[in-house]
Amino acid sequence: MSIQLLLTGNELMAGHTVDSNSARIAQALDPLGYRLDRKVTVGDELSVLVAEIQQLSQQAEVLIINGGLGPTDDDLTATALAQAAGQTLQEHPEALAHLQRWCQRIGMPLSEENRKQALLPENANIIANPIGSAVGFSLTLNRCLILCTPGVPRELEAMLAADIPRLISQQLPASPRRLYRLQTFGLGESSLQAMLHQQFTDLPDAIEIGFRAGHPLLEVKLSAPESLAEANWQHWQQRLRTLIGDYLIGEEDQDLATAVVAALNKRNSQLSTAESCTGGQIAAQITAVPGASQVYEAGIVSYSNRIKQQILAVDAQLLNQYGAVSEPVVLAMAEGALQLSGADYVIAVSGIAGPDGGSEEKPVGTVWLAWGKAGQLKTRRLQIGGSRQFFQQRVSAMALDLIRRELLAITEPPRYFKRNRSGG
Amino acid sequence: MSIQLLLTGNELMAGHTVDSNSARIAQALDPLGYRLDRKVTVGDELSVLVAEIQQLSQQAEVLIINGGLGPTDDDLTATALAQAAGQTLQEHPEALAHLQRWCQRIGMPLSEENRKQALLPENANIIANPIGSAVGFSLTLNRCLILCTPGVPRELEAMLAADIPRLISQQLPASPRRLYRLQTFGLGESSLQAMLHQQFTDLPDAIEIGFRAGHPLLEVKLSAPESLAEANWQHWQQRLRTLIGDYLIGEEDQDLATAVVAALNKRNSQLSTAESCTGGQIAAQITAVPGASQVYEAGIVSYSNRIKQQILAVDAQLLNQYGAVSEPVVLAMAEGALQLSGADYVIAVSGIAGPDGGSEEKPVGTVWLAWGKAGQLKTRRLQIGGSRQFFQQRVSAMALDLIRRELLAITEPPRYFKRNRSGG
Repeated sequence: MSIQLLLTGNELMAGHTVDSNSARIAQALDPLGYRLDRKVTVGDELSVLVAEIQQLSQQAEVLIINGGLGPTDDDLTATALAQAAGQTLQEHPEALAHLQRWCQRIGMPLSEENRKQALLPENANIIANPIGSAVGFSLTLNRCLILCTPGVPRELEAMLAADIPRLISQQLPASPRRLYRLQTFGLGESSLQAMLHQQFTDLPDAIEIGFRAGHPLLEVKLSAPESLAEANWQHWQQRLRTLIGDYLIGEEDQDLATAVVAALNKRNSQLSTAESCTGGQIAAQITAVPGASQVYEAGIVSYSNRIKQQILAVDAQLLNQYGAVSEPVVLAMAEGALQLSGADYVIAVSGIAGPDGGSEEKPVGTVWLAWGKAGQLKTRRLQIGGSRQFFQQRVSAMALDLIRRELLAITEPPRYFKRNRSGG
Repeated sequence: MSIQLLLTGNELMAGHTVDSNSARIAQALDPLGYRLDRKVTVGDELSVLVAEIQQLSQQAEVLIINGGLGPTDDDLTATALAQAAGQTLQEHPEALAHLQRWCQRIGMPLSEENRKQALLPENANIIANPIGSAVGFSLTLNRCLILCTPGVPRELEAMLAADIPRLISQQLPASPRRLYRLQTFGLGESSLQAMLHQQFTDLPDAIEIGFRAGHPLLEVKLSAPESLAEANWQHWQQRLRTLIGDYLIGEEDQDLATAVVAALNKRNSQLSTAESCTGGQIAAQITAVPGASQVYEAGIVSYSNRIKQQILAVDAQLLNQYGAVSEPVVLAMAEGALQLSGADYVIAVSGIAGPDGGSEEKPVGTVWLAWGKAGQLKTRRLQIGGSRQFFQQRVSAMALDLIRRELLAITEPPRYFKRNRSGG
């Protein structure tokens, strides 16, 4: 059995766009036991596309084409597939109806450019796109099932969640696999791999372990044939959770902010934030979680000393004596935010994101964090390397992780404290 | 002329790793006028690799192979290339010397696994790797120059900065190109293409136009051979800027927040934010810009009505009478933020990000924005479709764009006002 992928787009060839769609496709097919055998990427050139389609359709049983479904001149997939299959392009009534509905929804008339998207090879069948204007379609050529999918990630994801697996399973028998994904924070891939080597020596061959380094989370995945006995499967899920321990953020796609919101909900508590160097990133991550309003009412981005004094009531003398990036000031920010918001818990951060603003005593990357429950605040100084962007992302993640640990009453200090030699 | 790329790695096929190396390679070759014509990605399987190398070397003048140079069992590039070329693998003295130096540097003895990396096809020539243990090498097969490069990004980058372009230019003449990239917001790809069709009928064939849909920006790129006359090149850059007009955010990689920070700097003015539904995203984008502290001191995330009253001094009666998502409340939030921060300009947003909280009168996706200079605030109601995430991203982008337009004294209302039928 062979599933191949043809990606089209000058932007992919020119290196302007990093292809993340093929990872989306591979991950969507994985639970069904399908694997991609080969990916070919070419630019938006008609003769090249026609030749690729002809060749790949002779080699593969399923060919997924991604990209080239838009309204512009360099969107050539329908034309190329029609040529490769020796068919004419025709306006497809179902596709036209889709486009008209889409235009109605966004409140625009159907333009000539968009109408072009209804022109499909005569024997094509529509694949529903519940989100965007691009019309997905399928066609069988040289006994190969060809599936044409949109390049816009959300639109592709919608198709992968619905019709694509069903269409492939009509061509190739699926051999579904069980998947169990966990999100972790604070363990490196090599540390985790070493722990697995030591403690998982009795892992059955049928169960595979994989990693995916996200930012800032590291995903760990167990997979096994669906035939694996349920008790065995549960046993290894439990073993993996135990191994990861306090570094487990959640299952599936749960992120740090989701874990924090869930823990706050459980305690029926409210959180407030006071951010300097992270400039609102912690607040933005919390409020990205649906239902965050139950546990989060207020955040202050106090970028200047004046605002730290004026809104958070930080004592001017502390700022003068210790500087904005200091333990007394970050504590005062935390207390100010608690006072102002009436929340039970708080996160406060003050640091030097760079590229400017560092000194010998407090170089770029220095950050003070304060977190915890009113009256029981904890503080820590950390030193974070890397770019401004990396610093802000990393500090936000650590701040969320520290309040998560507090809310879950985890007493063991995280490894990133020990690793961090500037920890105060 | 044809340059092709063969990427190898099970992690690329399984979707655990997103391939960013091919973008690195394309970007390194682009200024020299080299384009990748085709990329093929396969897993770590010897017979598959041998067959690909044989086939690609017959089609391409240059074949770059990326990955598979490491010390582990699934690193098969040298073995596959030797088989494809009908050569034996031999320990290459220069490669061995490189590995010994590398081990010395990191203070480890040369392991059997690492020593395997010195085994290369008999006719291979070394490509220097100043950073890691992987030995790069080249070989000519079927008149195709094959360049084997490491999968570790920093090691690849070091080779791309030095030997790779030189080796390619010995095989294929370079024809350097000029590039000009612009970022736009508020124009759809199809609208922009229609404008170009109408107004750029006299564009010389030598100049190419390309698009890249980012989120939320749309990039437009001009490219031309380096031989294009400077005056002509300048003329078309100017024509493109004129065509894009008020929707031009900036050149190269400038984003909305960078444009806002630059405009504030120019006016020597300060901005403040009061965010409800965007929950700190606007603040986070502004403070992601280096030097933002010059123009941004304070942001309030006022997620609840209580905090809107308590921190931003929004009148309780307004909240009761009109609700939090209303013109009077968003205006009061803006005024409160100006009062509190002493800033000159403000952005305030209040809306319903969903998935819950909508009503018939104010469905999910409803948002009120207030923006502008103290005493001259403007307001607008908009209706944004899509997920919570899309809503927050889109509203943040529009808010930044509206204050950008205000700062640049652009009086023409943006197209997304006209398109938006709920605009109040």
